[in-house]
Order: sequence, then structure tokens, then C-alpha cells
Amino acid sequence: MLTFEDIQAAAQRIGGAAHRTPVLTSRTLNDRVGAEVFLKAENFQRIGAFKFRGAYNAVSRLTAEQLGRGVAAYSSGNHAQAVALAASLAGTSAVILMPADAPPTKVAATRGYGAEVVTYDRYTEDRTAIALELAETRGLTLIPPYDHYDVMAGQGTVALELIEEVGQLGALLVPVGGGGLMAGCATAATTLSPGIRMIGVEPAAGDDHARSLAAGRRVEIEIPRTIADGQAIAIPGELTFEVNSRLVDSFELVSDDEIRDAMVFAFERLKIVLEPSGASALAALLTGRIEGLPERVGVVLSGGNVGLERFVELLGRSRPEH
Amino acid sequence: MLTFEDIQAAAQRIGGAAHRTPVLTSRTLNDRVGAEVFLKAENFQRIGAFKFRGAYNAVSRLTAEQLGRGVAAYSSGNHAQAVALAASLAGTSAVILMPADAPPTKVAATRGYGAEVVTYDRYTEDRTAIALELAETRGLTLIPPYDHYDVMAGQGTVALELIEEVGQLGALLVPVGGGGLMAGCATAATTLSPGIRMIGVEPAAGDDHARSLAAGRRVEIEIPRTIADGQAIAIPGELTFEVNSRLVDSFELVSDDEIRDAMVFAFERLKIVLEPSGASALAALLTGRIEGLPERVGVVLSGGNVGLERFVELLGRSRPEH
Repeated sequence: MLTFEDIQAAAQRIGGAAHRTPVLTSRTLNDRVGAEVFLKAENFQRIGAFKFRGAYNAVSRLTAEQLGRGVAAYSSGNHAQAVALAASLAGTSAVILMPADAPPTKVAATRGYGAEVVTYDRYTEDRTAIALELAETRGLTLIPPYDHYDVMAGQGTVALELIEEVGQLGALLVPVGGGGLMAGCATAATTLSPGIRMIGVEPAAGDDHARSLAAGRRVEIEIPRTIADGQAIAIPGELTFEVNSRLVDSFELVSDDEIRDAMVFAFERLKIVLEPSGASALAALLTGRIEGLPERVGVVLSGGNVGLERFVELLGRSRPEH
Repeated sequence: MLTFEDIQAAAQRIGGAAHRTPVLTSRTLNDRVGAEVFLKAENFQRIGAFKFRGAYNAVSRLTAEQLGRGVAAYSSGNHAQAVALAASLAGTSAVILMPADAPPTKVAATRGYGAEVVTYDRYTEDRTAIALELAETRGLTLIPPYDHYDVMAGQGTVALELIEEVGQLGALLVPVGGGGLMAGCATAATTLSPGIRMIGVEPAAGDDHARSLAAGRRVEIEIPRTIADGQAIAIPGELTFEVNSRLVDSFELVSDDEIRDAMVFAFERLKIVLEPSGASALAALLTGRIEGLPERVGVVLSGGNVGLERFVELLGRSRPEH
């Protein structure tokens, strides 16, 4: 079970380590969408994304014995850096399993937080099996990227902070990959702002949550091809889906081009940097397709980890100034 | 005379209209420079730069009769949009004189705030003469970009807010173009944080303030060629130099490449967008050339108005990911 009290406890635990990220507002955005919009800017979180919250909360809950042996995670994305930093702050060691062809900058960043990086061949080797074996032989505790109550509780502090700061909201838009951020945020938001409409946002190519909600059970799709790499997941988490199937009202789908437009809007109008997954909830709002938008809307901007080179590759060519 | 009381009064006047911009901090930055750094993020100000503060303060001080006739300004940059928006909020009209070859997006943005744009040929016509004639024939009040006490007092609220929020600082780095931002900030900061070192930052190609301070009088240079267009000014303002020659301790010069590096650092590490002039004070800090850096340092990030296309043109080619 994931309860509101778990999220309050997580907020206490991460308070000294995580940033209380700013809530941004923009008259231009409000005028454009016809609502008062509150943007929770997790691109300003430590390691550049919300993932630090869940990782730190999970690591904080380990026993002295577990901390003595160390933690492990498999990820080529923000969760890798989140676990690496959380472990370092907790005074324990981390082993991160990454594909051998992961971007060198991400490997370097993870090592920069003091983690040991173990690589594998993602075309021939089974990541989960390697991670489990690694965890078992070395006695490491595996910190999953989303399907874990302590991780979900940590991510829920995003909505907790947002609503504590700005008050009741009519709707909250949250990017959904594995569903951990949404499960935590939905648990916090439906308690703090009763009647709030929880809207999950997925890339159109990765609509596993939308399909699963419609089917009433977890539906697996092909690994999505989308620029929103943080949301390129084929099936909802087991624990996260149990929460989200109860608390999420609907899922919105956005195309890669709509995500690009939102990244440009964030850059030129909000003066902030968002990675594709970090911009997807904003993209859904900007499409104008959400019907019956309430007066006060929250949007989670989940991360900003995109190097300049990749940013230019995504947006720099043949796109006019907006 | 510019007094601390003028800046306090300006803060009262602009309070309802200007944003109280956030102060950003970064552990990565602190570690890199060996000081605790507080970044005042005026890229999040209305119209995307600090210029709104001074323009709004100046417009607020006009009489009902002056407001009835309207205001005028000449600028192809942030001051144009600042005066246009300030006039619109004050319920008066604005005429902005811009070069005929100004970027269409800037002309459109200025018109978007309700201003009338009058163009001139910058190669054959005298901007000041046209502006004065326009002001006289139409009875408009000219709002100068920096050399005016009400404008300087408005800009000084940047330092006022920063020090009110974070407390005493050992040094404050401020980008210098015409010198209005510095004159206001130096007046506020030296009162609120006695003994503070005021460090002005200029592009190396536009070192008119540095030369003027050394010479003890205003020195004119050729129109500087630099990517920091907001600082491409040939001679310090008369009124601003009187203030700055008394209150500024030193000027630091930064190359265009150092400004580019700071823009990339802001993008990749801070997740924010800075225009070249907006990044110059950060650039000076990042060079490591400032000797005897105190423990607590403030830096003004003065603006973020750079379109994606221009950003890519400046940074997107042949620059490695940092």
C-alpha cells in the first residue's frame, strides 16, 4: 500500500537533501491556455530530475547492515545518477548497471557521483538477470526505478510541495513512464486537493498506461520509439499500476513534434531547459486538446537533462524561431 | 543624485508589476569556483530581462498629463519591450524607434505589447535626432535606456531583492553596458552590505567602463563587436558613470568565447537560458581570474532573450558537449 502518510514521511526524510524546487508561472502560458498554470520545475532538482527524490527516500530507509553492503540499480538515465548521488550522501557505495553503449557523458556523470559502473551488452545480455546476480553475489540492495513503495513515496513529494505552496488545483498533469511519479503524485494530490483531476501524459508511441487503463489490466506494448527516452517503457509497473488504475482519471498522448514544440516554448518563453520527457506534460497542455480545463492547473516538469549537443540535434535544425 | 531611498521607493512602485525573481544556487558552481554563489535570475523577469524594472519605475513617476500624451524610447533590444509593456500597464501609449533592419521577432514582440514601432535607417539617419523630434512634435516623454535616475533606481531593486533574500555578500558581479543596472545595484548593495566589492563585467571588446575608471573620466571607444549585444555601448552614461566611478571597485573583461562557455554552463548545469549579455557576469566568475574571491558572492544574470535560432547559431556548431 502507498498512503499519504508515506509521502509525508518521505518529505521529512528528503528535506535536508533534495531541493524544494520552484513553482514557475507565466502570463503568456496562462493567456494561451486560458487557465492559471503552476509549473513544478523538477529540472532544478538535484541531478536535474525528480528521480533523486525517490532514490534518496529508498536509500534512507535501508538498515545499517544494508548500507554497509551497498546498493545497486540498472538504468541508463536519470535514475542511475539519482541512486549514485543518494548512495554517496548516505555514505554507502553504489553499483550501476548500464548498457555498454550508453552515452559517455552519462557514464561519466554517474561515476562522478562516486558510483561503480558495470556495463553489459544490451543486445545479447539480460539486464535484470545480471542485476539480480550482481545484487546477490555482492549482497547489494537493488533500488528499482519505479516499482517500489519507497521510490513512489519519494516522487509523491513533488505534488505535496506543489499543492502546499499554491493551494487547491483543479487538475494536475504528470508525465508517465513506469508510473512511479504519477502514483506518488496522485496519492498526495487526491488527499490534499480532493476532486482534483489526475491526468497522465504519455508519448503517443508509448501508450501502455492509456491502453492498460482502458483494458483494466497491465497491457504490454513494443518498446516505444520516441524522443521521450524517460518514458520509453513497454508496460506499467505492477505496484504503480495498482495505484494509478484507481487514482488517474485519464491519459493524454502527445507526439514527438508536440514535445519538441513544448521544449521550444520552455526555452524561448520560460527561459528554462527541459528534456523531452520533462516537457511532455507541458506539451499536452499546449495542444489545447484537454477538454474542460479547470481554472487552476498544475503541471510537473519532470527533468532537464539534455546536453546541448542532443538539444541541437532535436531542435536546432530546420525549425523556425517561435 | 541617486540614493538608497530612491531604490526603496522604486521597489514599492514596481512591486505589483515586476516579478520578484528567484535566487538560484548550484553546488556544482560553488565547488567549481570555491565560493557560495547566489544567482539573481533576471531572465525570469517580465519581458525576459531586468530592463522592465527601470522602465516601469520611470513610467510610474510620470504625471497624469505626461501619461495622457504617451512615452517614447529608442532601442532595438530589451529596453524597447520593457517600455512598451510598462506603458501598456500604465494605460498610456508608447512609440518605439527601432532600426529598419531590427530582427522581425523583436519588432513583433514590441508591437505585441501594444506599442507603435517607428523605423529608421541606421546607416543614414541619426537616431537621437529622430527620437527627440518625435518626442517634441507628439509631446511624448522619452524614457532613456540607462542615463536617468528613475531608470537606475528601478534597476537597483535587483540588488535590493537579492541582499534582502540572502543576506550580506562579499562581492557582487554585475554586467555593465550603459551602466544603469550597475549604478542602481551599487547604490543598493553598498548600503545594505557595507564593504561589498562591486565588480562590473564588460565584454573584452567593449571595455569603455574599465578604461573610463582607469582614466577618471568617460572614455569613448569604437562601437564594440561582441555577441553581448546588450553591452555593445561605446561610452558610459554621464549620470551612471558619476555613480559607478564612486562605487565600483573594478571591472572584469570577458571574451565572447568565455561568454559562450557560461551560456553552455547555464544551459547544461543550471537548466536555464541566458542571452550573451545575461551570462557575462557568470562568465567572469567561471574564468577563475577574480582574485581573492570572498566566501559569499552574488551574480546578476541580467536576461534570457535569445531565440532558439540565434542560440544555435551562437553555440550549436562545432562545440562539444560539456
